[in-house]
Formats: sequence, structure tokens, C-alpha cells
Amino acid sequence: VVTRLGAVAAVLLASLVSGATAAAPDPVEEIREEALHATRALELVRSLTMEVGPRSAGSDGDRRAVAWGVERLAASGFDRVWTEPVTVPHWVRGQASAAIVAPFPQSLVVTALGGSAGTPEAGLEAEVVRFETVDDLEAAPADAVRGKIVFLDGRMERRRDGSGYAETVPNRGRGPAVGSEKGALAVVIRSVGTGTHRFPHTGGTRFAEGVRRIPAAALAIPDADILAHQLEMGKPVRLRLRLTSRFLADAESANVLAEIQGSERPGEIVLLACHLDSWDLGTGAIDDAAGCATVVEAARIAGRHRPRRTIRVLLAANEEHGLSGARAYAAAHEEEIAGHVLAFEADFGAGAVWAYGSAVNPAAKGFLAASQAALAPLGIEYAGNEARGGADLIPLRQASVPLADLAQDGTYYFDYHHTADDTFDKVDPEALAQNVAAHAVLAWIAAHTDDELRPAPPREDG
Amino acid sequence: VVTRLGAVAAVLLASLVSGATAAAPDPVEEIREEALHATRALELVRSLTMEVGPRSAGSDGDRRAVAWGVERLAASGFDRVWTEPVTVPHWVRGQASAAIVAPFPQSLVVTALGGSAGTPEAGLEAEVVRFETVDDLEAAPADAVRGKIVFLDGRMERRRDGSGYAETVPNRGRGPAVGSEKGALAVVIRSVGTGTHRFPHTGGTRFAEGVRRIPAAALAIPDADILAHQLEMGKPVRLRLRLTSRFLADAESANVLAEIQGSERPGEIVLLACHLDSWDLGTGAIDDAAGCATVVEAARIAGRHRPRRTIRVLLAANEEHGLSGARAYAAAHEEEIAGHVLAFEADFGAGAVWAYGSAVNPAAKGFLAASQAALAPLGIEYAGNEARGGADLIPLRQASVPLADLAQDGTYYFDYHHTADDTFDKVDPEALAQNVAAHAVLAWIAAHTDDELRPAPPREDG
Repeated sequence: VVTRLGAVAAVLLASLVSGATAAAPDPVEEIREEALHATRALELVRSLTMEVGPRSAGSDGDRRAVAWGVERLAASGFDRVWTEPVTVPHWVRGQASAAIVAPFPQSLVVTALGGSAGTPEAGLEAEVVRFETVDDLEAAPADAVRGKIVFLDGRMERRRDGSGYAETVPNRGRGPAVGSEKGALAVVIRSVGTGTHRFPHTGGTRFAEGVRRIPAAALAIPDADILAHQLEMGKPVRLRLRLTSRFLADAESANVLAEIQGSERPGEIVLLACHLDSWDLGTGAIDDAAGCATVVEAARIAGRHRPRRTIRVLLAANEEHGLSGARAYAAAHEEEIAGHVLAFEADFGAGAVWAYGSAVNPAAKGFLAASQAALAPLGIEYAGNEARGGADLIPLRQASVPLADLAQDGTYYFDYHHTADDTFDKVDPEALAQNVAAHAVLAWIAAHTDDELRPAPPREDG
Repeated sequence: VVTRLGAVAAVLLASLVSGATAAAPDPVEEIREEALHATRALELVRSLTMEVGPRSAGSDGDRRAVAWGVERLAASGFDRVWTEPVTVPHWVRGQASAAIVAPFPQSLVVTALGGSAGTPEAGLEAEVVRFETVDDLEAAPADAVRGKIVFLDGRMERRRDGSGYAETVPNRGRGPAVGSEKGALAVVIRSVGTGTHRFPHTGGTRFAEGVRRIPAAALAIPDADILAHQLEMGKPVRLRLRLTSRFLADAESANVLAEIQGSERPGEIVLLACHLDSWDLGTGAIDDAAGCATVVEAARIAGRHRPRRTIRVLLAANEEHGLSGARAYAAAHEEEIAGHVLAFEADFGAGAVWAYGSAVNPAAKGFLAASQAALAPLGIEYAGNEARGGADLIPLRQASVPLADLAQDGTYYFDYHHTADDTFDKVDPEALAQNVAAHAVLAWIAAHTDDELRPAPPREDG
């Protein structure tokens, strides 16, 4: 990963040095150059992952991360740094074990899905019934499922835009609830991820009100292969599963915010978001320390050039267990939402940005031209005016706030996503610097433009 | 890995098809072609890893592996299949946990080294003292070490020939014993491995008679990075370590053997070895299911062409915990050792063979020419008459049995070696087939040559 992204960034640097920046307004080139050569974002990722580490909502790490965020933002030259309280669910993973009991006994590498119930203390054991997708499970008669352990065996495809995730993640998000409604004792899935390293990929699963919460777990991909192989041999396969996951009482966490006030229009806000929480298995380097380091550094660098509008950073609480931080921000800033002229989030790893999408007033032609010209030397193509924003921006999208997407290369993101292997060494310094540069120039142009970016264009899906 | 090795194998296949085989004796080309196109070795690896799985000496998996070996060899057309008893140590890993307590609390991914003692039930906690190498530890005054946890932080270099391993593995093999002699409470090492995936690499550590056995563990490489980072910050770092490793009573295992009797000189033996045991963390695909599949298939294919000498396969018991199977073989076959004309072992993963070394009577010019000519079309260069043989051949080397090395590409071997990630998907089918071809032609030529391969050339190091 490092080598490939490094090579990409080197090419980008070379193309940047060779010119093509004529159309960019002052001081865009200076901002971009500074961001490409700074190392502070990398140091922020190192510090958050190695000195705080895992920071799942409600955990001790979560509290330490909030204190870390306040401290680091206070040292970054913002005009104002503050926190806002967020109540978060507090799910704890506990221990997980799984083993094929018959026909060929073997332990399997497994982890609970976020929101899973625990099994009985001694574990549970049942015959396995396999489906490719949650749709197949939904179509199956209940008596093929009742009393069994459902195995959802769909494989995620590797693609730069990460679109394989959306195709496969319903097995994780909906599979356990559908299994529960059909009387399954538990649901195990082939991890929603790429690559074949032996890490289970966790992630949230949802049980609607009234649906019984059952044990739900992900097998590492080589372990799903073993289970699939034994099933293919045609004899009944029995699995033993033990999870000690459970919910504790809701906990207090916080959104961490900072801003550089606009010199001319302080009530108009350009919002850069990331999420400060992580899953508990890794140290949350690419999900989402890299995103937080990117937006903090981008705002800091852009903010040194007297932006006309306010540039604000949101390090959101609890993205992973249900977007509590995003909802709390929207609620706390309801009066101010109409003042948000652009919002964008970095939450797709640490790969180089390759595409830029906007969702702004189509009449903002000066902004659209300037932002595209500023991003092009970084190797970023324009993808149209249909941006959707990150997960933490969903409440703002619903309030018609203009959005942008700086789409990162996701080719390898899902090798690490939601695993113990999401650690500092997976972040490529040059790709991270390119991210900072892209976010910084976009923030500055949005904070400086004469155009009116509001309202976002209407969208069919809301 | 798969892609790179696949590309290598494709090139080799292409070069093979284009000729360059004129010098090879009949039926070498036929043997090589059959091996390159067979898929049975891959199926053997799949079956051993997915239907038996981990098979550490003394475990249930070890017993199942012996039964599996007998059954599979019996179905492979050998003249004779048998087992020989081997008494093995029975060490059990138990649970492992480690956490930095101060200055920045964080759990670390850790596993015990083979032969480690357990900690007290509640674990132990102490300040960490770091050294790069066991030599540095050896040179340190005892009062810098006494009562502390020693951290050996040496990094292994990635190289095709795997020589970085020999440079770094003393930290694992000797480090804990040296720490014990200086009064350390425990020794943790940076895993001896390449890559940065978050798997600790286990492996044996040795305590000489009279040296107190202490807890000894390996940190995954990203976790060693975290510990090193916190140490670099200059404050005392305290680590908590808990291991429940222990030895059970010695257990009975077995060497599994099979042979095709020579048509003219049945008392002269060409021995192909591998080891059937594995570490307990992974499923032992590249260490050493691939080696066993290679030698079984190579012997089977070569044996179908009426070899003049006997071709024998040894699936050795307990390589990982101290070569009991190798010693038992040498002891049980003491009378026969003088009849061994050549021995070679496949135990370096599943990468394509790139070099061939011999250690045979230098007068065996016909054999040397024929074997080099037969291996060249597979992309294998000759490396001289100084082969050392695999670990299970040490007793035979000491008895001056002629040896060969078919050196496999080890560039990626140590990304997986001794980790949970050593699973079936890491085996490249084309590289495996190239291995079978190389082993098969060498076995047949050694079994057929008119030359006298004995004695091995004298060696300075014994």
C-alpha cells in the first residue's frame, strides 16, 4: 500500500511542480504547497493511535480521545475550541470463540458484530445453514432456518470506489435481524472486507424495535473458506459459538469542535468533519484518525490565510454505533444550520483523493471552476454536482446543506476496515499529505468565494 | 503474493514450452510436465489445512494429522505406508494478553513463544527495558535488567533467500534465556517476521538445562511499534503481561513414511522430507502442508517411472518443538543410513524454487549435469555443492548423507511464518506445481543415476 500510494503522490507532486496552477486564486497554491510538505497530520495520527489507541463509544479510550482532541486542537491555532455533550450507547465486545464441531473439528477466527447479543455462558451449538446473501435468507422458508446457525457467505469485491461494500454490507447490517425473525439461533457472516488476511471485520448490525437481538458474528475470510469447504463436502456441519457481548448503560461522550472565525462573514460556516471514535479491535488509524488529522490540518493551514467565512472542524462522537455525534451536532446547531455554506467529511481511510463531487447551488460557477482548478493539480477529477457527504453529514444533508465529497482511493481500505489491523503503519505519509492539501484548498475556496453555495440542489432520494 | 508468484510460474511455464529441455534424460520431461499440470498437491494442502487444521505436537490435531497422512499416502500408490512412534513434548499456548499500563494505557497483540513459562495467574507487571538484540542484552549489566520486562526490538529484513531470519531469530531463540539469567521477569520480542500485519509470530525459544524458564512472548509488529514509540517519549513504560502457557506430559506422535521400492537397488534410498506438525495459531498451510504435499506428489509422480533406487517420503513429527521426529527417524534407521544416497526437505513455504544446491560426491558429474539440466527449464539456477538440507535432515547431515536444497522464494514467507495467517489461501497453485516438478525430477534423477552420490563432501561446520 505504502509503495503504491507513495508512487501516486510522487507523480502528483511532480505534476504540481510542473505548473498547471495558473487558474487557482491566491493563496491556493501556497496552501496546497504547505499542506503537501507538512508532516503534522502524520504526527497527529501517530499520537492518536499510539497514545490513545482504540476509542469505541463509551469506553475509557473514548474519554481519553476527547481530552486528546481538545488538547491538540488548542495547540493548533484555532480561535475557539470546545466540546458538546453526546450520549452514546456503550456496547462491549467481550470474548468470542467459534469452532466447527463436525464433520472436521477446527477452531475459527471470529468476532462479534457491533450490537450483537451474547450467547448463553456456555455457548451454543447448532447445525449451519448457508446462504449467499440476506436476500436469499429472506426468501428461505422459516423451517430451513429455525434452530440453526445461519452462515451468510457473500464475498465483497475490491474496487477503487469501494462500491463492493454497499453491495455486501446488507449481510452484516440486516442479516442478523432477518435470521432472528426466522428463528435462527445466531448468524455468522463472511467478513465484509477484501484481502485474505486472517482478521474478522466487525461493524454494526441493526435490530429494529421488537426484533429479538441474537448473537451475530463475523468470520475472518480464511475461516469462512474453511466453513464453506466443509459445507461443500455435503455432510451436516455443526458449529459452536460463544460470545460475551453486551450493552452497558448509555455513556457520556462529546463532539469536539474548533473554528477559525471568518473575517467578513463569521456566521457563514464551512464545516470539515471526521469521527473521533473508532472500533475497539484496531487503533483506528485509517478509520478515522487519518480523517481527523486531515481535517484538523486542512482547517489549520487554510485558516492562516484570513478566510472570509468561518472554518469549523467537527470531530464527531460515536459514528460507528449509530451516528449519535452527528445527530447531536445537528440538534445543538439547529439555529445555525442555515448558515452552513459547505460541509464535507474525511472518513474513507488514508488513500489519495481521486475524485471531487459537489452538491452546491449550480449557479455557483466561480466556486465550481476555482475548486476544480485547485484540485486538478493533485490528480483529482471532477465527478459532478451529486455529492452525498459522509455518514456524519446525513442530518445536514437532510437539512439541504451544500456538500462536497473528496473521494479517496478505497482499493485497499477494506483490507483493514474494522479489523485489528487498522494501525498506524497502514497510513501512507504522502497520500495523507495529498488529502490535507485537497481538503485545505477546498475549505479555503469555499470560505472565500463570492458565490452563494446555498441551497444544495434538490435530490430525489432526500 | 498469488499474483506475483503466478506471474513467475507463468513465465517458467512459457520458457518450458519453448524448449531448452534437450539435455534432460528420459522420462524427466514427462515427469516435469505431469507435475506442472497436476492439481493433487493443492488438494492435499486444502484437505490438511481445512479438514485437519492446526496440528501442534501432542495435540488432538497432531493425532488426526497422522491418521490423515496414512490415509492419503495409502491412496497415492506407494508400495508401502507405515508409521514409526515418536515421543514429543506437549506444550500448550493457553491465553496471552499484554497491555501498556503507563504512560499511555493500551492493549497489545501478543502471543507466547513455544516453550514459554506461564506468568502468575494474575499476570505480572514491570517496567520495560529495551534492547535491539540479544547481544546487546547480553552486554548489559544485570542491574539494568533485574526485575524488569526485557523488550528485544530487532527488525527482520525482507530478502528472497530469507537470510534476514537467521540474523534476527536469536532474539527469539536465546533472548528469553539470557533475560532469565540476568533476572528479567519476562522477555517480549518484536515478532521475527516481515510485513506489518497485526499477527504475532510465535516460534520456539530455548532454555538450557538449569536456566529458569520465564514467560516469553512476541508482540505483533504494529504493537512493537507502539511500545517503541512510548519508550522513545522518555517516560518509564510499564507493561502488564499474562500468559497461561505450560507443558503437559510428553505425548505419543508418529513419523509417517511411504516408499516406492527401487527396481534394481531397493536398499539405496532417496529421501524426501517435510514435517507434518504445525504451529497451533494458523492451519500450517505454508509451514508445512505445502512441503508435505510437494514431496508426496513428487515421490508419487517420480515413482510411476520405475526408479532403480527406492524413493521414500518422510512426514516428520514435531519439527517445531525440537525435531523429535528427525531424531527418531535417524535412530530407527541407523542401520540404513549408509544406504541413503540423497535427502532433501521442503520446508520453506510455497514460493517457487529459484536455486538448487547439492552436497554430493563431487565425482558424480553425470548426476550433477543431469539434475541441473532438468531444473533449469523451471527457472532454477545452480548454487554449488554446499547444500545444508532442511532442519529435519540435521541428523542425516551429521551422518554424512548426501543432501540437496531446492531453495524456495522466501520474499513473502516471513509475512505469514508462525502466525494465525498461515492459511490455505496463501498458497499459490502455480508456484506449488513448480515445486512438485522440481522435487519430482530431482528425486527421479537421484534414483536413476549411474553415479555414486556418496559420500557427501566434508564440511567445516560438521
